[in-house]
Amino acid sequence: MSNPQPLTAGNSRVKEARKLSRRSVRSERRLFLADGPKAVEGALERPSRVVEVFATPAAAAEYADLLADAPVTLVDDRALASLSDSVTPAGLVGVVRFLDVALNRGFWQVEPRVGAPRAVHSDRLFAICADVRDPGNAGTVLRCADAAGADGVVLAGDSVDAYNPKTVRASVGSLFHVPLAVERDASVAVRAAKDAGLTVLAADGGGEVDLFEADDLVGGNVVWLFGNEAWGLPPELAELADHRVRIPVLGRAESLNLATAAAVCLYASAKNRRS
Amino acid sequence: MSNPQPLTAGNSRVKEARKLSRRSVRSERRLFLADGPKAVEGALERPSRVVEVFATPAAAAEYADLLADAPVTLVDDRALASLSDSVTPAGLVGVVRFLDVALNRGFWQVEPRVGAPRAVHSDRLFAICADVRDPGNAGTVLRCADAAGADGVVLAGDSVDAYNPKTVRASVGSLFHVPLAVERDASVAVRAAKDAGLTVLAADGGGEVDLFEADDLVGGNVVWLFGNEAWGLPPELAELADHRVRIPVLGRAESLNLATAAAVCLYASAKNRRS
Repeated sequence: MSNPQPLTAGNSRVKEARKLSRRSVRSERRLFLADGPKAVEGALERPSRVVEVFATPAAAAEYADLLADAPVTLVDDRALASLSDSVTPAGLVGVVRFLDVALNRGFWQVEPRVGAPRAVHSDRLFAICADVRDPGNAGTVLRCADAAGADGVVLAGDSVDAYNPKTVRASVGSLFHVPLAVERDASVAVRAAKDAGLTVLAADGGGEVDLFEADDLVGGNVVWLFGNEAWGLPPELAELADHRVRIPVLGRAESLNLATAAAVCLYASAKNRRS
Repeated sequence: MSNPQPLTAGNSRVKEARKLSRRSVRSERRLFLADGPKAVEGALERPSRVVEVFATPAAAAEYADLLADAPVTLVDDRALASLSDSVTPAGLVGVVRFLDVALNRGFWQVEPRVGAPRAVHSDRLFAICADVRDPGNAGTVLRCADAAGADGVVLAGDSVDAYNPKTVRASVGSLFHVPLAVERDASVAVRAAKDAGLTVLAADGGGEVDLFEADDLVGGNVVWLFGNEAWGLPPELAELADHRVRIPVLGRAESLNLATAAAVCLYASAKNRRS
């Protein structure tokens, strides 16, 4: 423990950290806030990405094992609450370096992920989200991609900030597990995937391929391309994909929402790529 | 149009309708508010369930076709806003009779649903949600069940009110499409399904059946049983099911969230029950 007396909300270090609630400040400093023990634990899997962990004395005691080698700064309850966007802050907020990596050829290569218990397979599985706007949806897609054993996720186009506190929370740690890239131009991401030998499948309600009849296709080396919550994929982007795949809607719903559609598509791939 | 002069927020009919924002009043009167043109359109598919539609003069004009035979009451913008929980009310709020039906043997029988474009099949597909607490999740599960061609949904145990405005909105009309039952005792719902000849599959992360190896099982006459967002299914309820099915988690996520898990399970059934 570095400081015997907990810092207050008015302390300059706490104030500086609090500025990371703004996207512009996060982008400039390439730092974000990891709120709660789950997120802090995820961040600490690579200790070098954690700048500092703010903790109340009670949380520092409760999570002593987790924080054993972490750079902890004690703060009082009010200071902690000022760093958290949670209604009931859990007492820990980490200041963490950005996680996204460059969208170069290396991003599309599969390396076994540390600790991943998934079945052995050689196929690669990725997701590109274009223009996803809701922070919770972005986090949920990251979580689904992780659960489905995906090798990486690209937040592309005019997407929500991956480091928005709601995204971090909805990912339930998966933000720290799944390789992430950010690319402002979604078509650049799609072309890069194709150049890397991947088949790009656009999830598109009007697609020419029926998901239920595409086991071989979805089980290969694929990138799923998902569009915006409200308007889906722009036609020119869907056209760039190798195939447009529709999830059959068998009842009277018009569609699935983004997160559930992504889950169905990613799990269709997960099932069919297992050895 | 019944009233030439739009009613204000202080009008007694508007005030009475506004009380339907409270669950206790909804339950007592078995009436709820359908907010927005999508929900009003769904409700009006069976005109007998619509008591009245409050509309601003602008919305009444914009949706004149939809409202042609509806009992419209004109209200001013402030009165309409007082009936809507939407940030940007769309100008229409219906007062609608409860939709849930009795959980008797008839509930579990398949009748072709009006207008359902789904493929012909003889297998039945249902979902029971036990203790679902988040209104948005309940609505999303209804939407997924509808999209997957399910024949009915039971909100069981200590679940959120199906007529919560957030549930209605998240269902995007599916609340009006999918037969719905409500049962306070989830074990009663499970036993009723079994008595009706259905196989109950509990979605359970620790289940003995791997979803990826259960095509025949999930494609039969099945009821999926889903638990609470945070703590899943109580063991005694999971034990009541015929099988406990786990969605494989291939990466490092601990689980999927309720709505995405439900989507994956329901679509596994949808795929395998197609003729």
